[in-house]
Amino acid sequence: MILFVLNGDGSTLKEKLSSTSASYKFLNLYGKNLALAWPDSEVENIRDPSIEIVVKTKRSYVLAGNEWKKDPTKVNVGKVEIGGKKVVVAAGPCAVESEEQTETVAREVKKAGASLLRGGAYKPRTSPYSFQGLGEEGLKILKKASEQTGLPVVSEILDARDRDAFARYVDMVQIGARNSQNFTLLREMGKLGKPVLLKRGLGNTVEELIQSAEYILMEGNGNVVLCERGIRTFEKSTRFTLDIGGMVAGKLMTHLPFCADPSHPAGKRELVHSLALASVAAGADMLLIEVHPKPEVALSDSEQQLTPESFSLLMERVRGLASVLGRSA
Amino acid sequence: MILFVLNGDGSTLKEKLSSTSASYKFLNLYGKNLALAWPDSEVENIRDPSIEIVVKTKRSYVLAGNEWKKDPTKVNVGKVEIGGKKVVVAAGPCAVESEEQTETVAREVKKAGASLLRGGAYKPRTSPYSFQGLGEEGLKILKKASEQTGLPVVSEILDARDRDAFARYVDMVQIGARNSQNFTLLREMGKLGKPVLLKRGLGNTVEELIQSAEYILMEGNGNVVLCERGIRTFEKSTRFTLDIGGMVAGKLMTHLPFCADPSHPAGKRELVHSLALASVAAGADMLLIEVHPKPEVALSDSEQQLTPESFSLLMERVRGLASVLGRSA
Amino acid sequence: MILFVLNGDGSTLKEKLSSTSASYKFLNLYGKNLALAWPDSEVENIRDPSIEIVVKTKRSYVLAGNEWKKDPTKVNVGKVEIGGKKVVVAAGPCAVESEEQTETVAREVKKAGASLLRGGAYKPRTSPYSFQGLGEEGLKILKKASEQTGLPVVSEILDARDRDAFARYVDMVQIGARNSQNFTLLREMGKLGKPVLLKRGLGNTVEELIQSAEYILMEGNGNVVLCERGIRTFEKSTRFTLDIGGMVAGKLMTHLPFCADPSHPAGKRELVHSLALASVAAGADMLLIEVHPKPEVALSDSEQQLTPESFSLLMERVRGLASVLGRSA
Amino acid sequence: MILFVLNGDGSTLKEKLSSTSASYKFLNLYGKNLALAWPDSEVENIRDPSIEIVVKTKRSYVLAGNEWKKDPTKVNVGKVEIGGKKVVVAAGPCAVESEEQTETVAREVKKAGASLLRGGAYKPRTSPYSFQGLGEEGLKILKKASEQTGLPVVSEILDARDRDAFARYVDMVQIGARNSQNFTLLREMGKLGKPVLLKRGLGNTVEELIQSAEYILMEGNGNVVLCERGIRTFEKSTRFTLDIGGMVAGKLMTHLPFCADPSHPAGKRELVHSLALASVAAGADMLLIEVHPKPEVALSDSEQQLTPESFSLLMERVRGLASVLGRSA
Repeated sequence: MILFVLNGDGSTLKEKLSSTSASYKFLNLYGKNLALAWPDSEVENIRDPSIEIVVKTKRSYVLAGNEWKKDPTKVNVGKVEIGGKKVVVAAGPCAVESEEQTETVAREVKKAGASLLRGGAYKPRTSPYSFQGLGEEGLKILKKASEQTGLPVVSEILDARDRDAFARYVDMVQIGARNSQNFTLLREMGKLGKPVLLKRGLGNTVEELIQSAEYILMEGNGNVVLCERGIRTFEKSTRFTLDIGGMVAGKLMTHLPFCADPSHPAGKRELVHSLALASVAAGADMLLIEVHPKPEVALSDSEQQLTPESFSLLMERVRGLASVLGRSA
Repeated sequence: MILFVLNGDGSTLKEKLSSTSASYKFLNLYGKNLALAWPDSEVENIRDPSIEIVVKTKRSYVLAGNEWKKDPTKVNVGKVEIGGKKVVVAAGPCAVESEEQTETVAREVKKAGASLLRGGAYKPRTSPYSFQGLGEEGLKILKKASEQTGLPVVSEILDARDRDAFARYVDMVQIGARNSQNFTLLREMGKLGKPVLLKRGLGNTVEELIQSAEYILMEGNGNVVLCERGIRTFEKSTRFTLDIGGMVAGKLMTHLPFCADPSHPAGKRELVHSLALASVAAGADMLLIEVHPKPEVALSDSEQQLTPESFSLLMERVRGLASVLGRSA
Repeated sequence: MILFVLNGDGSTLKEKLSSTSASYKFLNLYGKNLALAWPDSEVENIRDPSIEIVVKTKRSYVLAGNEWKKDPTKVNVGKVEIGGKKVVVAAGPCAVESEEQTETVAREVKKAGASLLRGGAYKPRTSPYSFQGLGEEGLKILKKASEQTGLPVVSEILDARDRDAFARYVDMVQIGARNSQNFTLLREMGKLGKPVLLKRGLGNTVEELIQSAEYILMEGNGNVVLCERGIRTFEKSTRFTLDIGGMVAGKLMTHLPFCADPSHPAGKRELVHSLALASVAAGADMLLIEVHPKPEVALSDSEQQLTPESFSLLMERVRGLASVLGRSA
Repeated sequence: MILFVLNGDGSTLKEKLSSTSASYKFLNLYGKNLALAWPDSEVENIRDPSIEIVVKTKRSYVLAGNEWKKDPTKVNVGKVEIGGKKVVVAAGPCAVESEEQTETVAREVKKAGASLLRGGAYKPRTSPYSFQGLGEEGLKILKKASEQTGLPVVSEILDARDRDAFARYVDMVQIGARNSQNFTLLREMGKLGKPVLLKRGLGNTVEELIQSAEYILMEGNGNVVLCERGIRTFEKSTRFTLDIGGMVAGKLMTHLPFCADPSHPAGKRELVHSLALASVAAGADMLLIEVHPKPEVALSDSEQQLTPESFSLLMERVRGLASVLGRSA
């Protein structure tokens, strides 16, 4: 497809496009008026004074690509900026289990230096007999913990019909690995307009992850953070294989920031620190860490959640690392 | 969890369960009243005259498993029975493009011996700029072709909000690879009650596929056909790796019938016949084959769709094979 | 590189090549005099009356490819022809354990219709503490069983220094999955001149398998059968993932025949029949099946070896299948 | 199997073992006299005053495991210690092409802070038509460059018959990914006694890598460094997937040090720095980096070799990182 970056509203271009049989879409992204049009053959000879830049790409994505936007995108969640100098850490329990558990963790991770509170209210579980989360009640608990600590909240949405509850209680919406190519949900989150943390599917390439982001950007929502969380391979000493190389290669393909989730691929907490540090050394803009006040009694992912003490130590190590990389944490 | 197979409506059991703190669910499946309850420790000592059989399993699924139901399940789609002696073939275009294209293919595949008409109206596309399908219009075209040929229709649903259109126009609802762990959609299709063709996700194990089916069965809908369609591996001479071994292993784990889709893993039509025959030889109950009147101008999956002539030859070969395996086609 | 198919001994061509700085190699393969030369730029303008055909390929292999040799290669092992109409079955124990065990199996598999006796004398074991095989003693036992039954023997070589023993006792030399890219061993087996059964490595593509065969062919030994035996993937319900699609794709790339080994990917004997039948349906020229008189006491691969009774039934099923495919078994 | 750590030469134990039907092996490793014996049932009741510690393991390796040896092993190559506080960097060209090229690189990497010179003389190439290396001539060139710079040399062996040349010219012998389960070569390198850099096979698990090391240790050679160099997965934006999680998990299973090779998985030089830094942050004891004076004209792996300037910058970054991790480089 072809992307036109415009210097006005492009009304004259719109007229010209409407006289072809091409598909097109006008949108505003990162403060720029843009027009997408395809197939190329219908539109490549169009000239219009509103056109500032033309990007004709062979890639299967363009808005999320860095051919038209060279500067790294910074995504703001409340006052937290992801994609800037600071390595942003989101931490909290795998699942919200109770007000007390959530508030305890929130206070602890805040104290240790986390910038965002993560917690699952709607849990996607491979088995229908596993704990499915507290639902909207869980979102309210997160909201309360957020108000107490000042940490914005990131939580996963499973069903577009819950959008109003997420709009109300959550600051950043997570799309999980299993929904990474749920195009219905991607479009809806594009329309919702909230910052999105988009996880890579277990069986998806980095390029497909960026294409999924394209669905969100196409709706005019450019606040997307991509998340590497491990892929399925034959190796079984870890739960998933954290594809740090894929993240590094991805950063050359897109202007969007990257988060790394070391907790899920680790599968056991002894490995989380090393994977977190490796991710930061490789250039991750954000970390997503599972922390539970008492991991051994957690209702899900018991093996991989850090204690608050261990998380606090990790934050120290991340800060040390970030400092020699010219960043902060 | 524990599964109780009941000889009545289990009202006395329900009372006993309600006096514990266990979670439980009563449902009717394959003509049997069942009760599921968990965690085990709360319910394993319950005795009740309504309990015919108790199944306590270590697996992460039970309704879809063959510990309580030894006989293979037969799924009926209109007059077509999947899981019986006959190898059922569903054929048709990757995407419904027009009335003429669809009706032409429908007639051709009917003549060649197909039992079901497949065709995509809502297309899940990795790139938002690829052809997204005709939507409800496509379903209507399929319905019309179905009425002309008598072939029931199978088509993929992407969004639970389209359930009414699928209820009206479609005989079997397909859940595609990308939605294989979209638990919202699985539950909704369980409630819809139509037969479901459930595809395995690119990065999912066979066990996870069966667990996804469990979500549908839990809603009282037992008419589920599992579909092997290739997984992601390092091998690149095919588009995906058709996991015939996984299908064979899966058949030992579940009573549900298995479909194989040789078109998607092949990626090119020269490979489709061999993969289809291999699938039947390995025990597939159903085949899903992409056929297009003019594959070279198809709007999607152009490389892998068979011509009607090639499909007709394939049906002959499948029939020959089925006959020596004690089956028909 | 460039391949010249010659109509004489090419002495004049050799002179011309020697006057360039190109690398070249003359050899005789399948009764044809051939010359290989590279890099292309040095030789593409050479003209010589001895040149019958010139093949300039972009592939990374040429001798094993079907650009110069369209007809399928038939590999003869004693009187057994692999790659012709008959599906050739090699059967026998994973490991030779004793004379009695081997001779019992040899008689049984012969009776059931096998054409070759397989058995491991030198066992490549992941752990140094597993049974390593009887070594040369094992080869002698195989030879004796071969003389009793008339079945030629196929057995795996691990170390090029054992070549004399293999020359003496074995009819077809197997290069196992772990040595699939042991280029030293490949070259030596090329020089030995015996038929080779070359297995695909666990982490190798089909193209790499064909490139490994190229090393053998380059030494003038064209009697190579390629063997698909399963690759490493994330799926764990089978031991390896039998890549039937890769085999089918491979058959379009090479003139060499393909064997399938359903025993190793199965990992458990319940799956072996289905995988064997699927392989034959997909076009395998040969099957390699593990059979043990008492699998439950086998010193290796106990779980996946068939009993003689089960093997006999499998042969019946293979014959039935082969007949409808226009082949025999 | 059972491992006995002895406080003498174990002659009385040897007598007792010889009176059973068990297999056993005495060896000296890391200054300790050890006896291995299996199967367990034959030996578990043996008592002897020479036995200091008994390790009965369920793992498939024991010498390379950390059940009997808790302290991390330090491998000495000349004066260079691998596994200690310093992150050791081996650098040099993929292939030795000429004296000048090798000596130039050797001087440059020495100046930048490398501790070892790497370079391939015998090259394992997937295609027989690719550059196969200079052979023994290449080893001599490396030796000369080593004498000029004082950097010990690490180079890959393909064929056990070249052992004398390696004994003469090389300080550390590399076993490459394709030979990771070439048990013949592993045993021979165990006997040679030189330090070994053992790479993980493309399709091998971390546990299998450690089992391969066990073959070397069993011959009394404990100087083994394990090397993570990327595995085969479906992701194609990198050449291989560097499995940093596998390395971290491996460090919990063995006392042997780990090297990471970021060059091969990267496939392109833009990714090498990030993968190298990630490896160090995750705990790698050694890095193996390809450096070429003019990568664009390299005879192999042209895309992934660093220039000397880029390598020098990488060393600075590695030193910075090492310092905050309490290490040096």
